[in-house]
Amino acid sequence: MKRLVLLLTLAMTGCAGTAKPAFPPDPPAADPKLAGMQYLYGSAEAAAISRQAWSALTFYVGEAMQGKDRRSVVLAEGATLDDPKFVPCAGKPAAAVFDVDETVLLNQGFEYDDLTGAPHRDFDDRWARWEKTGVHAVSPTPGAKEALDALRRMGVTVIFNTNRNAFNAGPTEQAIDDAGIGPAKHGTTLFLAGDDADGSGKDGRRATIAARYCVIAMGGDQLGDFSDLFAEASSVPARRAETALPAVAGLWGRGWFVMPNPVYGSALQGGAGDIFPADRQWHDPATPRKEVQ
Amino acid sequence: MKRLVLLLTLAMTGCAGTAKPAFPPDPPAADPKLAGMQYLYGSAEAAAISRQAWSALTFYVGEAMQGKDRRSVVLAEGATLDDPKFVPCAGKPAAAVFDVDETVLLNQGFEYDDLTGAPHRDFDDRWARWEKTGVHAVSPTPGAKEALDALRRMGVTVIFNTNRNAFNAGPTEQAIDDAGIGPAKHGTTLFLAGDDADGSGKDGRRATIAARYCVIAMGGDQLGDFSDLFAEASSVPARRAETALPAVAGLWGRGWFVMPNPVYGSALQGGAGDIFPADRQWHDPATPRKEVQ
Repeated sequence: MKRLVLLLTLAMTGCAGTAKPAFPPDPPAADPKLAGMQYLYGSAEAAAISRQAWSALTFYVGEAMQGKDRRSVVLAEGATLDDPKFVPCAGKPAAAVFDVDETVLLNQGFEYDDLTGAPHRDFDDRWARWEKTGVHAVSPTPGAKEALDALRRMGVTVIFNTNRNAFNAGPTEQAIDDAGIGPAKHGTTLFLAGDDADGSGKDGRRATIAARYCVIAMGGDQLGDFSDLFAEASSVPARRAETALPAVAGLWGRGWFVMPNPVYGSALQGGAGDIFPADRQWHDPATPRKEVQ
Repeated sequence: MKRLVLLLTLAMTGCAGTAKPAFPPDPPAADPKLAGMQYLYGSAEAAAISRQAWSALTFYVGEAMQGKDRRSVVLAEGATLDDPKFVPCAGKPAAAVFDVDETVLLNQGFEYDDLTGAPHRDFDDRWARWEKTGVHAVSPTPGAKEALDALRRMGVTVIFNTNRNAFNAGPTEQAIDDAGIGPAKHGTTLFLAGDDADGSGKDGRRATIAARYCVIAMGGDQLGDFSDLFAEASSVPARRAETALPAVAGLWGRGWFVMPNPVYGSALQGGAGDIFPADRQWHDPATPRKEVQ
């Protein structure tokens, strides 16, 4: 709001020297993505959360493979979030299904370029070039290699279901393999956007995988890595509330495993009124207010 | 960098109308904290990660109380991160120790004010007023109430160790109690900054607690909630690397439990060169570069 006032002032006076903002000038604007990148790619705290999630997954799958709590975690056709039903497991070998970007791989090179490269570039073209030429500018998320190695030792097939492009299947197989968390083979243990007619929706690919395997665990950084049903939420608070539904709440850390990502994706939406419930909107009694952004 | 060029251009010409930036203008600058707030307070993904962490904690403590893996997780005096030793447990009742802010409570009111209130205010004064008058503008982190209730049912004493101010002990007790996650009683189950001479360092308070209790689990959103030793790291990457030390890596999700917080704290530091390792700094081959910020 303040910047808009400043811009209007500039427009009316025609000259920067005459603008008199009501507050001292802001410090040089940080890239709005910087804090998220500091957290996800640079911090000890995010690395610890990643290890914590992979640890929880490894223990959960270990119990499941010992027969204690082995159940399918892929929602069946016709399921709802209020009344979930899962694809049956009978007779199928065990698998675990993971998203790739910011779930098993950190896209350090792409995000470095996003922070330091020229702005206002076409995302899709740049991302496609990244898939093709950035193969060695990634790292496993902290704890991923140890966990995926452990799963494979338990006899669990590790399958990747990602919205990377099918036309770049080769480089993505190589990125996963060379990061030490493969194998990933397109059509067998790697499923990509373009494999079916569902675009970025992953339910179709999940159904294909669950037809062959008993999927006992899934991991992702976006809700769409677990079910496309979440995309139907009517508002930001409604979407958040769905994670607490009785049939859903118990899955977090017990079948569905979430990796941190405050840098991009469907988590980053909403204004102050969406983020903060009306009955939690405190104001400092001692200072004046500015308008809601 | 681009903004600096624009400012220099303005300074040289003296008039906004004559500035000709090399790129189209940026969209209105978002508050640098907005994305983190969208994630932590508004998103389904962060709520799911919070539930996942509390679930892992509940299962871990359940096992410990059944005698399977009961061990102290408070570092003893003289311990190092390379050679950790823990305060002995013999004969003491079990406790779990938690930070408060963004660990068991979401400070929605304070952050709403931070996003929408007047800028450039003194943080410490404003925070002290928040502790005193914001008692009902908080919520438990998702899953916290269920987990703390479960711990108390298992016979584990829940203790809070926070850098909230000792001079506001009453309102903080009330905030925790009224959020449904108490009791919290200063000096018994609530420890605050000002309780000893260590300021915001928590090791002294942890030692006081561990002298009375066998602390089998700790939870926090900052590394300082687990040990002050992390504060001695020599750089951003060195700090992150410490979470992977052999003796430390296995504690995440197995004794030490981390809650997400990309909004504030020691996780948010470093420039592009600190966040991204030199051998992961990719650039899009098809677009020009700007200088590192």
